[in-house]
Amino acid sequence: MPESDGLSHLNQAGEVHMVDVGEKEETSRTATAQAEVVMSEALAQRFFQGELKKGDAAAVSRVAGIMAAKKTSELIPLCHPIAIDKAEITLEPNGHGITVLATVSTHGRTGVEMEALTAASVAALTIYDMVKSVERDIEIRHVRLLEKSGGRSGSWSRS
Amino acid sequence: MPESDGLSHLNQAGEVHMVDVGEKEETSRTATAQAEVVMSEALAQRFFQGELKKGDAAAVSRVAGIMAAKKTSELIPLCHPIAIDKAEITLEPNGHGITVLATVSTHGRTGVEMEALTAASVAALTIYDMVKSVERDIEIRHVRLLEKSGGRSGSWSRS
Amino acid sequence: MPESDGLSHLNQAGEVHMVDVGEKEETSRTATAQAEVVMSEALAQRFFQGELKKGDAAAVSRVAGIMAAKKTSELIPLCHPIAIDKAEITLEPNGHGITVLATVSTHGRTGVEMEALTAASVAALTIYDMVKSVERDIEIRHVRLLEKSGGRSGSWSRS
Amino acid sequence: MPESDGLSHLNQAGEVHMVDVGEKEETSRTATAQAEVVMSEALAQRFFQGELKKGDAAAVSRVAGIMAAKKTSELIPLCHPIAIDKAEITLEPNGHGITVLATVSTHGRTGVEMEALTAASVAALTIYDMVKSVERDIEIRHVRLLEKSGGRSGSWSRS
Amino acid sequence: MPESDGLSHLNQAGEVHMVDVGEKEETSRTATAQAEVVMSEALAQRFFQGELKKGDAAAVSRVAGIMAAKKTSELIPLCHPIAIDKAEITLEPNGHGITVLATVSTHGRTGVEMEALTAASVAALTIYDMVKSVERDIEIRHVRLLEKSGGRSGSWSRS
Amino acid sequence: MPESDGLSHLNQAGEVHMVDVGEKEETSRTATAQAEVVMSEALAQRFFQGELKKGDAAAVSRVAGIMAAKKTSELIPLCHPIAIDKAEITLEPNGHGITVLATVSTHGRTGVEMEALTAASVAALTIYDMVKSVERDIEIRHVRLLEKSGGRSGSWSRS
Repeated sequence: MPESDGLSHLNQAGEVHMVDVGEKEETSRTATAQAEVVMSEALAQRFFQGELKKGDAAAVSRVAGIMAAKKTSELIPLCHPIAIDKAEITLEPNGHGITVLATVSTHGRTGVEMEALTAASVAALTIYDMVKSVERDIEIRHVRLLEKSGGRSGSWSRS
Repeated sequence: MPESDGLSHLNQAGEVHMVDVGEKEETSRTATAQAEVVMSEALAQRFFQGELKKGDAAAVSRVAGIMAAKKTSELIPLCHPIAIDKAEITLEPNGHGITVLATVSTHGRTGVEMEALTAASVAALTIYDMVKSVERDIEIRHVRLLEKSGGRSGSWSRS
Repeated sequence: MPESDGLSHLNQAGEVHMVDVGEKEETSRTATAQAEVVMSEALAQRFFQGELKKGDAAAVSRVAGIMAAKKTSELIPLCHPIAIDKAEITLEPNGHGITVLATVSTHGRTGVEMEALTAASVAALTIYDMVKSVERDIEIRHVRLLEKSGGRSGSWSRS
Repeated sequence: MPESDGLSHLNQAGEVHMVDVGEKEETSRTATAQAEVVMSEALAQRFFQGELKKGDAAAVSRVAGIMAAKKTSELIPLCHPIAIDKAEITLEPNGHGITVLATVSTHGRTGVEMEALTAASVAALTIYDMVKSVERDIEIRHVRLLEKSGGRSGSWSRS
Repeated sequence: MPESDGLSHLNQAGEVHMVDVGEKEETSRTATAQAEVVMSEALAQRFFQGELKKGDAAAVSRVAGIMAAKKTSELIPLCHPIAIDKAEITLEPNGHGITVLATVSTHGRTGVEMEALTAASVAALTIYDMVKSVERDIEIRHVRLLEKSGGRSGSWSRS
Repeated sequence: MPESDGLSHLNQAGEVHMVDVGEKEETSRTATAQAEVVMSEALAQRFFQGELKKGDAAAVSRVAGIMAAKKTSELIPLCHPIAIDKAEITLEPNGHGITVLATVSTHGRTGVEMEALTAASVAALTIYDMVKSVERDIEIRHVRLLEKSGGRSGSWSRS
């Protein structure tokens, strides 16, 4: 079914469908996505250090991100189900909040860009949920792909 | 169980738990959250108008956001399951991309702030998924609460 | 939000949303739906009797229907999540296949019509799955509401 | 484990199990299933045309069908989880309602017959949900396989 | 529907159904369940202390238990969906492994016994998953209810 | 990423991640796990025989175990999603209750040990749920791996 001008989820009639990846090769693919949770430096420090047990709050966010990577095709309607080989979430203070990095890998017929973005978003939302009782004007920003490799289109990284 | 300094998901030992809302009142609660998907104006116009069948692309994003609102407690580990009375997603072009607004209501013992934020995030990720074959440097930003009402803490809106 | 001519899932702009049930009363509501799986009488008898262990094949279908009733709001995008009080599936041979009846009850703000229809459909699909290796031209028909009670609109039964 | 007379989900003891597909070949497989939603011609026209924004109502049904195809192994107890390569739902007025066609493809060890049937059923139930406030005696019928190809048993189409 | 000799999930015909709780009162209910993961004392110490970052391994298990409590009605076919007010998992070394305690509360029409047992089981399986690369003969035992309160049958605790 | 002393879910920083299985071979793998539900012999007999319709109660437990095997990666946070080729649950009276055996097979990059253990646990919890109205001090024990084959580490069976 021919696609309409690059918006590959719409067929010629403009109707939504899940694109056929049956002809694509199974290759090793990796994607890394970012999200930032903006909060006061003091709150970010309480999240990571000091009297709070660091591991727990950060671990809950990491677990939420990893589990969300596995749920991507249930959340994003036109994503293909994909067997994830690896998922890793790192959290780092950045002076004005917390940077989330999500890396996901697979051997499959489609990339894992949406999986990495979903993992980063849900990890960030989980941080939000855990600190929102302290500061109300938390914001998530810079939800974006940093790099990807594998597949027909090869490697790409955000300049 | 006493809480540690306002981070209500951590008990005195610093361990994660789902806080008890059994003593809270069942009241009518509403929250509205925002997310912005940054893309070229030309692509946003193609998303909304012109040769593309507008309804489809926007409707897929709205459906994804509504379904995600219902999945919030499966995604955010410490969120309580809650019976949603209403969920509505609106999408608008804003000159540099698309603004997503998600409004969620309930009669319940906890607010629907995370439900609105999750709905807005997933609707935005779905837009991302549908346009990423055209432009690669899409970014999601301004994921944040705009206003909420109901519950013990009363109404609040972002100034 | 005013509705457009009785199609209550579409708002004035014609956009999809989950309608607000917050003003509706919590009342006791019940719905019964039907589905028929058409097959040869011989196969229906093998399903229910004889050398096959009757309980198993029928029980799998009943369990599938009950579990589907609980998943309705995950499957039908604009259905409200609802706490089901009771779900029951009965299966009966009807001379040209198997009749599935699904009855679901709740105390809630919306009816359980879609829950009963979803339960009946999934129970029927499960029967289909279990007999399709024997006969290929199985068909499901008469998926429809038989009666409902409770809520603003009162009792109704198919004449 | 030997099967009992062609009912492959029951082992020799008549107990339910998920049959072993480990020895089957991974081949390209496709299935198309149908469902019909019977309603007045006037309502079907309102669904597709006129003052209603066509795209939305039809798109919600298509999205629901596509997402249901991905959930088949969660709904039908003995279905194997399978990585879907493609899913497409088409809706057409047929003079006495709406015909739903669902086509699903995979590279896998089992066919996608149940995936296509589940997608068609859930798309039809979603149409039902969206028009039931206008006409109460909607009915779904002709839920059946139209054709399949791939796998050991080769191609088949309903005569 | 009369029950058959106390096995309340079976109706008079011996068929499975989800029992009707519509006539039951909504009361405050709590249940605590236990599970033990048997392993060497050295491994339990590595799980909790020393060079391993304690918080992470224990937090993953706690999060898994809390999320499983919310999934109980999807896992146990005849459990009613229930809105959980609170869920808490504690882990303690006991000299021959790790004791998991899960406490769940609700305001609802049925108890949360199965929710507490499911939470304890899944937290224990998660511990198993995290240490199984070190010792192969891990075993889970004493999965059982310790106490419950609320509802028609009042308080009970294991003697 | 180097592992810390055999606890493979923790990276060098002690943080949780889903380990990379991308370099592992896809091989045929099988695992069998056990669980025991302890109850009076009289109740176990009622579960399996006599006036109760045997098939139903046992079939519900088998179905729950099979469906849980398919949900393992949603329940155990660091498990990889895996396409199961076969799942089988057997139940047997053992003089002091019921023994559950769960066997799961796959062609994949990781084993199905956790899938078999999760299936056995959920089947056992389902039995618990179905008999708990008769005897309150039911207990689940001996949740453990019996044997596994396939993969780098070869065959293993509990001595």
